[in-house]
Amino acid sequence: MTASREIHLVRRPQGMPRPEDFAVVDTVLADPAEGEVLVQNVLMSVDPYMRPRFNGDQALGEALIGSGIGRVIASRNAKFAQGDIVRHGAGMKERFVSDGRGLAIIRPDPDLPLSVHMHALGGTGLTANGGLLETGKLGDGEQVFVSTAGGAVGSVVAQIARIKGCHVVGSTGSDDKAAWLRDVAGLDAVINYKTQPLAEALKAATPKGIDVYFENVGGAHLDAALTRMNPNGRIPVCGMISTYNGGGEGVRNLFLLIYGRVTMQGFVASDFGHLNARFVADMTGWLKSGQIRYQETVLDGFERAPEGLIGLFEGRNAGKMIIRVAE
Amino acid sequence: MTASREIHLVRRPQGMPRPEDFAVVDTVLADPAEGEVLVQNVLMSVDPYMRPRFNGDQALGEALIGSGIGRVIASRNAKFAQGDIVRHGAGMKERFVSDGRGLAIIRPDPDLPLSVHMHALGGTGLTANGGLLETGKLGDGEQVFVSTAGGAVGSVVAQIARIKGCHVVGSTGSDDKAAWLRDVAGLDAVINYKTQPLAEALKAATPKGIDVYFENVGGAHLDAALTRMNPNGRIPVCGMISTYNGGGEGVRNLFLLIYGRVTMQGFVASDFGHLNARFVADMTGWLKSGQIRYQETVLDGFERAPEGLIGLFEGRNAGKMIIRVAE
Repeated sequence: MTASREIHLVRRPQGMPRPEDFAVVDTVLADPAEGEVLVQNVLMSVDPYMRPRFNGDQALGEALIGSGIGRVIASRNAKFAQGDIVRHGAGMKERFVSDGRGLAIIRPDPDLPLSVHMHALGGTGLTANGGLLETGKLGDGEQVFVSTAGGAVGSVVAQIARIKGCHVVGSTGSDDKAAWLRDVAGLDAVINYKTQPLAEALKAATPKGIDVYFENVGGAHLDAALTRMNPNGRIPVCGMISTYNGGGEGVRNLFLLIYGRVTMQGFVASDFGHLNARFVADMTGWLKSGQIRYQETVLDGFERAPEGLIGLFEGRNAGKMIIRVAE
Repeated sequence: MTASREIHLVRRPQGMPRPEDFAVVDTVLADPAEGEVLVQNVLMSVDPYMRPRFNGDQALGEALIGSGIGRVIASRNAKFAQGDIVRHGAGMKERFVSDGRGLAIIRPDPDLPLSVHMHALGGTGLTANGGLLETGKLGDGEQVFVSTAGGAVGSVVAQIARIKGCHVVGSTGSDDKAAWLRDVAGLDAVINYKTQPLAEALKAATPKGIDVYFENVGGAHLDAALTRMNPNGRIPVCGMISTYNGGGEGVRNLFLLIYGRVTMQGFVASDFGHLNARFVADMTGWLKSGQIRYQETVLDGFERAPEGLIGLFEGRNAGKMIIRVAE
């Protein structure tokens, strides 16, 4: 018997999620049976895409759907040894018993911190890479605009575009993030959409228009980007964080898709499994050479997952928001 | 010397175009010089896509940009004989002198009226065909929704989809048009969006969802369609008539592109020149066999072009709106 905890959704948020929408629930796990393993969660991911699920797909009174990295602390499954580090989609559970399905052993690179497997080398990096290069069909040297460029996905998108020789403009919501993007990540121009008039600033920053707009925001960002799209431009749609909590303005400039022959296309990370081996090789190199820089916002303590999730919508994260459950 | 007339834009419309925004202007043409022809306009096209030009691309005090079919009434150009029927983009001119560039001789099929070259066999038909089959990548037997299904483009889209064995739902704004679409064009279901709640009616009419939404409207139509799109659905964007005169609601459901991996893509007729020969052969056969039916709304008199154009935004046309300038 092992004590554990889970994060539950206890009511459906109206607009912005609030702490009272969640509960930390004590549980007790049976010992692993033959073929099973006991996993200690180490790092948990909180991501904007979780919010829409709270309107329906996420069951009330069950552990939040989610992914993370854990350590096998007891194994009765021949495929896993005690101490193995595994990527999992077991949800927001402090510890859990698994029959091994959905667990993938990762061999952390000794020269990189484990946490990079949660973002640049993990799902958000694969999302950024596939969305930009495959869905967005990025060509070398093109004009690129990235929204939420200070976030886990956006910051990787922006830097991959830089590596491809593109002119890269990012938008973000604080001067600190803007400074990091300009000075550390090396973007060509950065817009703080909270202090600058977005449409005017974007026009000034994109004298050659936009070939690829990597869409994480929706609303006014999309309307502004649509006015700057070059013919045959692409808008890979990764997220629309401005709409997830309701409210916000509708999008009015979609007619600009027509004459520009612009393509908007949605995608999710799981579309890019076929790219993973190449991606991991590329990204490991980029991280070691310093061509891809990253920021992390780490909250210590399993019970802080709701705080981290809510913080995403308040822009409290610089880079990837991570919940550290154990060392 | 030949007397002619032109339709001019004399002020930029605010919202819906009004008769006072246009003027019929008398002109005098010099006789054709060596290499030139004199053309009598016979049929002129008015189309929703003209409206956005009035905000800027259309010069004030010049003939409206536009296309039509004319007859060569005098020729000093060896490529054209008196009596030749030509497709042209010379704009809204009753008669005009041309050096022949931009004129294409058409050989009207004796079994079809000349006017079909203005719609089903012309630019609107090519737009419908290319937008549905190439941009929309329609597969046989798919689920299709067409907005402004009673219009020149929409009615052809809907019927090509029927020919391809698809389940076809159309929306239109009057019971007369709905009856024609159901009883003559053979659609599986028709929604009168002015008398029925669009989102609910669309849900009921698309029990298997939507694979291709042929977009002519924008706004609430797009929001409703987005809730019904199947995974990997396509939204070829031909027009957004609801937005052309300003006002209207912004689009709020674009986040549904993401998990559905839905693609929206703009296009214009000129993208499909490479399809034209095959299209003309197919469409000629479909028209003769009765597989494609059509409606025309013909206004007699060159000076009625503004009335026809304004009427498009008031839904006064059944099928293609045509201005007949001469017999």
